[in-house]
Amino acid sequence: MASTRQWHLASRPVGEPTRDAFELVTVERPEPEDGEVLIETHYQSVDPYMRGRMRDAESYAEPWDVGEPMKASVVGEVLESNYDGLEAGDIVTGDLLWAEHAVAHGDELRRVNPALAPVSTALGVLGMPGVTAYFGLLDVGEPKPGDTVVVSAAAGAVGSVVGQLAQIAGARVVGTAGSDEKVDWLTDDLGFDAAINYRETDDLGAALEETCPDGIDVYFDNVGGPITDAVWPRLNLRARVAVCGQIALYNETDVPTGPRKLATLIEKRARVEGLLVGDYEGRWGEALERLAGFIDSGELEYREEVVEGFENAPDAFLGLFEGENIGKQLVKVSD
Amino acid sequence: MASTRQWHLASRPVGEPTRDAFELVTVERPEPEDGEVLIETHYQSVDPYMRGRMRDAESYAEPWDVGEPMKASVVGEVLESNYDGLEAGDIVTGDLLWAEHAVAHGDELRRVNPALAPVSTALGVLGMPGVTAYFGLLDVGEPKPGDTVVVSAAAGAVGSVVGQLAQIAGARVVGTAGSDEKVDWLTDDLGFDAAINYRETDDLGAALEETCPDGIDVYFDNVGGPITDAVWPRLNLRARVAVCGQIALYNETDVPTGPRKLATLIEKRARVEGLLVGDYEGRWGEALERLAGFIDSGELEYREEVVEGFENAPDAFLGLFEGENIGKQLVKVSD
Repeated sequence: MASTRQWHLASRPVGEPTRDAFELVTVERPEPEDGEVLIETHYQSVDPYMRGRMRDAESYAEPWDVGEPMKASVVGEVLESNYDGLEAGDIVTGDLLWAEHAVAHGDELRRVNPALAPVSTALGVLGMPGVTAYFGLLDVGEPKPGDTVVVSAAAGAVGSVVGQLAQIAGARVVGTAGSDEKVDWLTDDLGFDAAINYRETDDLGAALEETCPDGIDVYFDNVGGPITDAVWPRLNLRARVAVCGQIALYNETDVPTGPRKLATLIEKRARVEGLLVGDYEGRWGEALERLAGFIDSGELEYREEVVEGFENAPDAFLGLFEGENIGKQLVKVSD
Repeated sequence: MASTRQWHLASRPVGEPTRDAFELVTVERPEPEDGEVLIETHYQSVDPYMRGRMRDAESYAEPWDVGEPMKASVVGEVLESNYDGLEAGDIVTGDLLWAEHAVAHGDELRRVNPALAPVSTALGVLGMPGVTAYFGLLDVGEPKPGDTVVVSAAAGAVGSVVGQLAQIAGARVVGTAGSDEKVDWLTDDLGFDAAINYRETDDLGAALEETCPDGIDVYFDNVGGPITDAVWPRLNLRARVAVCGQIALYNETDVPTGPRKLATLIEKRARVEGLLVGDYEGRWGEALERLAGFIDSGELEYREEVVEGFENAPDAFLGLFEGENIGKQLVKVSD
């Protein structure tokens, strides 16, 4: 029988995860049943939200089981199909496994057209991160021309799209990021009005005052923690905060107290709202069409960071928490 | 010349205010100019938001000046009028001073009809607290039949109206309050489904699990702090949080970190929004009409706590932070 490899969750990490949490397992390659297809993974996504799946806590999705394969969005090629409408050689994307091969029902896959854009974009700017940015900014953040939009983790897969969509909406855009290289990319290549390297800034509040002299109308929050602490007091009247991620806090083992600056929301009648891209399932087509249009017109640029080799997938994931990636972090599993 | 008395802000309190912060001053009674009326205060309101006005910090309203009279909503009688449409003997309400007498332009006063309800209600259930409850619950909280609504400081001027309006909207209602007497009032008299004496509860989370077995759809937050910490993790999908007050934190001198539980909002796609009754200026008529209707029909009950004597106004104010009042706290200044 043919075999394949999977990454399993070896143990639930406490605090910052390490490679011990992952185990590379060789298993029999699964066979597609009726309605299913067998997919060979070309690219696998690693995403910050996966940290939450490693916990044994109820959340918006089931926690991963210890000793079982972990889940991931992948883009890959159909090797065998028992599904009408997909055939061997088709490129598809879907929520599958950290695995070199996997089976899935054809209804749960989306076809990717390799002629339109590199297929890897189906995991980034034309996939979950891009769609998250699209609905999070436009539906929750509601930027208006002249608004000041601040986005944290601005050089990440979601943040970089948020900032460019905010510019398209006519807003001033300020990003926070963790290296000078990222800051340069944001301001020089993506045209952000300003970017702050939070690791090199003693006084985040002062840096925000300087870069946002008219206050902040929309905050797209990917990180939480001290950056969010510095942003909230500078929110304008009727500001909107889209809470998309809290990566600065995902590895904390204890969060002793909850919100302590809610009085700001009274003062500014601001709205803070959590968002999850899964809620927009029926509207992906709209987002993907517009994002593809902005790429075509040159208004939307993207970067991908590719770790080569399935065996290195855990490193790609762990690097997210070190802020190593610029743009979307991917694992290249096969050609 | 006739005289009157005013309470002035003697100094800006740090932490819990004490009587030292207040100075009783006798001044010349002011004379109404063209368009103005002279009012004798019958009842003066004391409200938690006043703590914020004592700080020298920019907020949604100007801070009070040290050595100047403090501001308050009052209901009183027109003694002299230079305003067309008001005459001596009329009962009016408005934002005036901690004072036995004050002048105001007639345009800034609202006439109160003593035949409809006791005039003191113009400072409570048929005044700012009632209108705050009305718009905060209905516009921000958006309760639906079958929802579970939790309101903190539920036995207060705002909270007690919130809970009853939530019942009228068909929701289950659970309140938190700081004494058994308050809990009994909420459950026995106002018909709350449950009430929690947070001072006598070791595990607020468990108490909420027990009283809200289906989770929490709307949280009307009057207090912040540990009660809010216990509520947030129990919010349901698409829950709404109306942030109206944070009385548990108003006397804190340092708020070291900001929100640390925003991941809850992602998980539940919950919305947290600050509210200020001043934003609904043009819609008071609608709220007052409906609130008066609910009082008439017996669906809305209210209580008032009256401290007698203008000289005791600071005690009435300080008592708010001890949780002494059930319902609206008033100072009776004259008959």
